[in-house]
Amino acid sequence: MADLEEEVLARIERQRKLKARFRDEHITMAHGAGGKTTHTLVEGLFASAFGNEALDEMGDAARLEVDGAMLSFSTDGHVVKPLTFPGGCIGELAVHGTINDVAVSGAKPSFLSAAFVIEEGLDADILREQVAAMADAASRAGVPIVTGDTKVVERGKCDGMYIVTAGIGLRDPRVNLSSKSIKPGDQILCSGTIADHGTAIMLARGELELEADVESDTASVWELVHALITSAGSDLRVMRDPTRGGVATVLNEFAQDANVGMTVDEEAVPVNSVVRGACEILGIDPMYVANEGKVVAVVGPDSADAALAALKATPGGERAAIIGNVQEEPEGMVLVRTGFGGTRIMDMLIGDPLPRIC
Amino acid sequence: MADLEEEVLARIERQRKLKARFRDEHITMAHGAGGKTTHTLVEGLFASAFGNEALDEMGDAARLEVDGAMLSFSTDGHVVKPLTFPGGCIGELAVHGTINDVAVSGAKPSFLSAAFVIEEGLDADILREQVAAMADAASRAGVPIVTGDTKVVERGKCDGMYIVTAGIGLRDPRVNLSSKSIKPGDQILCSGTIADHGTAIMLARGELELEADVESDTASVWELVHALITSAGSDLRVMRDPTRGGVATVLNEFAQDANVGMTVDEEAVPVNSVVRGACEILGIDPMYVANEGKVVAVVGPDSADAALAALKATPGGERAAIIGNVQEEPEGMVLVRTGFGGTRIMDMLIGDPLPRIC
Repeated sequence: MADLEEEVLARIERQRKLKARFRDEHITMAHGAGGKTTHTLVEGLFASAFGNEALDEMGDAARLEVDGAMLSFSTDGHVVKPLTFPGGCIGELAVHGTINDVAVSGAKPSFLSAAFVIEEGLDADILREQVAAMADAASRAGVPIVTGDTKVVERGKCDGMYIVTAGIGLRDPRVNLSSKSIKPGDQILCSGTIADHGTAIMLARGELELEADVESDTASVWELVHALITSAGSDLRVMRDPTRGGVATVLNEFAQDANVGMTVDEEAVPVNSVVRGACEILGIDPMYVANEGKVVAVVGPDSADAALAALKATPGGERAAIIGNVQEEPEGMVLVRTGFGGTRIMDMLIGDPLPRIC
Repeated sequence: MADLEEEVLARIERQRKLKARFRDEHITMAHGAGGKTTHTLVEGLFASAFGNEALDEMGDAARLEVDGAMLSFSTDGHVVKPLTFPGGCIGELAVHGTINDVAVSGAKPSFLSAAFVIEEGLDADILREQVAAMADAASRAGVPIVTGDTKVVERGKCDGMYIVTAGIGLRDPRVNLSSKSIKPGDQILCSGTIADHGTAIMLARGELELEADVESDTASVWELVHALITSAGSDLRVMRDPTRGGVATVLNEFAQDANVGMTVDEEAVPVNSVVRGACEILGIDPMYVANEGKVVAVVGPDSADAALAALKATPGGERAAIIGNVQEEPEGMVLVRTGFGGTRIMDMLIGDPLPRIC
């Protein structure tokens, strides 16, 4: 029995080490879901065609040097449906999404661009509302929107509006983040409750026969990131904002990049009880549900407690927790220790249970 | 008669000086056409909501300083239909579009991002083809694509694919471009034939009962821009790539910003004869048709000949010409001297004769 399990693990591992190839004949919703299928598309098509050092790092932001300035540069498209939902809207998401990608690369977000694709016939008040929400989110985060573009497509060629933002940030010299720097013994931190955003969207779509008060967590994570950098310094290995694909997918990417094993203690992961209930009804594991204002970080053992304390002292980080740790084995895999004392493999997201979540 | 004309001109002028207000109830194709309606949307909604110094300059790119580096930052969405056309495709356009916005701000393009919105069910070979075209265009221009994002929307919620790029460039210290620096006596240069791109798209859509060999001019303009900077130095007042809205709209923006009059000599404007013929059949003035590889520049009188010679010596600039000049009056307006010796007002583009041109 143990031999069989080992054989299965070894086979999974060999498969994973093969270079991703994009062989699909058609684009499916899963290619945009942020899980395994997206990964194959990005690695097998985009990275192989555009191949360059900055892109090969495969983080959420590229780290660049321009005229001596150490920059981070990122972009994020937003196609969330509906356009507004409890706790936020597409405009807010478009500002926070890119700010957060820049922030988790270890950079203070400085400037944003915004490009709109708008459907002909859209009520202009809807556009006014989203622009106001963007302006407000940008102003609260202290990151001005300095350039933009507007395209309009015919009725039925878009769904109200899509917003693509890009952002530039200035990298903090105290950290040099890379998932490859993760080592056995490191601790895994999560800055707060998971699955709030994805669950809020599900409920807003009325796809569940359930009325519950769940709000998206859409927010800038820069203050949380800053707290982690300041408290852990060079012990901060890597950060990521667990959006599409959730915490499970981020941890799988980390484990594969660093060729280490990870164990998550399910009971240590903060989840709001309403969110947990909604996920149970839908049969979705909250570990795979998108977040829009959280950070997952891997920190060296000597700085983990200080980093946790710093997160807890930062607004939005009150429910931060150490949710797991890093071991040598099984290489490239993430295990979950359940409440019942058992252990199971937690793979990347496969398929797309929640399309157009962001 | 002369009094009446003056009265009309004065009234138009007063109207133009009023701050643009976005009062429309619905979004129309014209809001994305790059002419007067887009101008009102951008100035009346986006600029007033996002208001900051960099955005207020209202160029195609924002000029920023990050950690001592003098940067340009721009974004451009692409929704062109069809996805491929004689002379180019959406992927190539997406690379050149942003490179050119950065270049005409006086900056050497350094890095690009690319965000895709893809329609579920798209033939993966179409995506492969566009990605290869992007990679090729980026490599020819020496500007790597370093970061990206992919979203997929359901069938019918997009038209194949939309691509939004953003770009960072390093500003050339030899120039400090601003449309406000234009002075009476300055010369207006155009780097080559106009209206090729828009006409190629029209023909590719089969909207004309006309078979003609017209190719899009999609190309990076960085080499042309570099030739202008090197030859004219601080006499180079401002540049723009005349995409949506064409040369007419760009010159109107310049004239309004600088509060000067401009006269264009219609016979001096280079237009391919096939393009001229197609525009005549469709009843569209080539001055309003989009270009994707041209530069319009305003240069002080002492450097105009040198700038023209430099353009002509640069690949892609062989047909460059001085197409007009700047006077004190009529303030904020552009006049065209026709082949018959008459003069008429050339306003900004109104409406959208050619939707989804880029």
